[in-house]
Amino acid sequence: MNDTLVTLVGNVATGMDYRESPNGAVVRFRFAVTPRYWDRQRENWKDGSTSFYTVWARRALAVNLAGSVASGEPLVVHGRLRVRDEENDGKRWVSAEIDAVAIGHDLNRGTAAFRRIVRVDAPLTEAQKAAVG
Amino acid sequence: MNDTLVTLVGNVATGMDYRESPNGAVVRFRFAVTPRYWDRQRENWKDGSTSFYTVWARRALAVNLAGSVASGEPLVVHGRLRVRDEENDGKRWVSAEIDAVAIGHDLNRGTAAFRRIVRVDAPLTEAQKAAVG
Amino acid sequence: MNDTLVTLVGNVATGMDYRESPNGAVVRFRFAVTPRYWDRQRENWKDGSTSFYTVWARRALAVNLAGSVASGEPLVVHGRLRVRDEENDGKRWVSAEIDAVAIGHDLNRGTAAFRRIVRVDAPLTEAQKAAVG
Amino acid sequence: MNDTLVTLVGNVATGMDYRESPNGAVVRFRFAVTPRYWDRQRENWKDGSTSFYTVWARRALAVNLAGSVASGEPLVVHGRLRVRDEENDGKRWVSAEIDAVAIGHDLNRGTAAFRRIVRVDAPLTEAQKAAVG
Repeated sequence: MNDTLVTLVGNVATGMDYRESPNGAVVRFRFAVTPRYWDRQRENWKDGSTSFYTVWARRALAVNLAGSVASGEPLVVHGRLRVRDEENDGKRWVSAEIDAVAIGHDLNRGTAAFRRIVRVDAPLTEAQKAAVG
Repeated sequence: MNDTLVTLVGNVATGMDYRESPNGAVVRFRFAVTPRYWDRQRENWKDGSTSFYTVWARRALAVNLAGSVASGEPLVVHGRLRVRDEENDGKRWVSAEIDAVAIGHDLNRGTAAFRRIVRVDAPLTEAQKAAVG
Repeated sequence: MNDTLVTLVGNVATGMDYRESPNGAVVRFRFAVTPRYWDRQRENWKDGSTSFYTVWARRALAVNLAGSVASGEPLVVHGRLRVRDEENDGKRWVSAEIDAVAIGHDLNRGTAAFRRIVRVDAPLTEAQKAAVG
Repeated sequence: MNDTLVTLVGNVATGMDYRESPNGAVVRFRFAVTPRYWDRQRENWKDGSTSFYTVWARRALAVNLAGSVASGEPLVVHGRLRVRDEENDGKRWVSAEIDAVAIGHDLNRGTAAFRRIVRVDAPLTEAQKAAVG
């Protein structure tokens, strides 16, 4: 309740920082969004200032990101936004963080060959049990 | 293009800082969003950490906010998100800012008596011109 | 999960259809959204075609809407979208429906006097218990 | 202004209907979104009813979708929503349509090999001009 959902269209600014934790896989990366505006006076597009976000993904999404995405690639990132504001060693630290719900390559900018992966932790269907024997 | 639109449901954390500028009225205030989660173990709702935003509104919206909203009131805020990251006096300053598109009191939390205001700067219609004589 | 959240800025097109049900208060109304575009050729704003939605609200939000909102008033509506596609008496019926999360008057278009209402079904705080005696 | 932006997480329900028009490439497909809810009583997830959308994409996004996406694949679709309500041959026809801003494969469900494509209509950079000779 009162979740703030947001969709970012932009580019990956770092590598995928992938970790295995006791609660499963986690990936973290920085993401850059640069809006473009139509300038009525000059009659052309111009760039606005770039916003940076820290994106977190978990479980299957984390594993698949680590195996699919490199720095510089364009993505669509959909997730929950929060603004962290913390004191570390006497310094204040503010960052905009996204807890990702779904992420994909932005097909405005290229093509993608997709390969479906069935999650290992899902219970087997009757058909799968029969196939496994 | 690549605008990041977001909708916040939360509470005003400051007064309305209202100014007249050469480009028209501007209002600025801080806004707090606290998500609530269903805790499956304990079977009750619990609060997440609070995110703070700086909200900017302009023109008629700024004037009407200044005349309608007080600190502590619950609002729905819809607008463009950007993350500012600046150096001032050798200090780094990060903040999440909303350029408001539309704002209203959250009617989950109370009632509101609305009074429509026709904007003065709109050109008169033919009917209005006739009425004015 | 996979909820589709959406924010509409537009006008109420009907009265508030208010009902008491065994699960509490429910309100339903129709809502009209008309986008406006900047026409580069003609250098002015023009209206796009209007989209109509059926909005549902429940509990305190329903009660407060019934006491605050009239047909024609401008609102910000934030909620979950679904597209219903049903057969009734041999006729196919499609409608876009919003299950409202939060709603407020659009303060671009006027002012609002807000009055907070404490929900009756919330447990009393210690201070309230003391006050009640 | 008053655009209704929405992000859908779901599955492609048809093939990509691709056309070349005088204004460039256009693709159209149907898209299915099925929300999942946590059932507190039964303590498990259950499916809600499925919503269907017609998605339109244009230019480079249309070309890349036609070359990358097949029926049944999971996508994240971000775009402008409108509800069309038309009379054709005496029959009323309502549909929820998305004018896509960005689309990508949902990496919760598999991996993707992305290949960037530089748009032919973009002006060459100085480096590219030098390379071309």
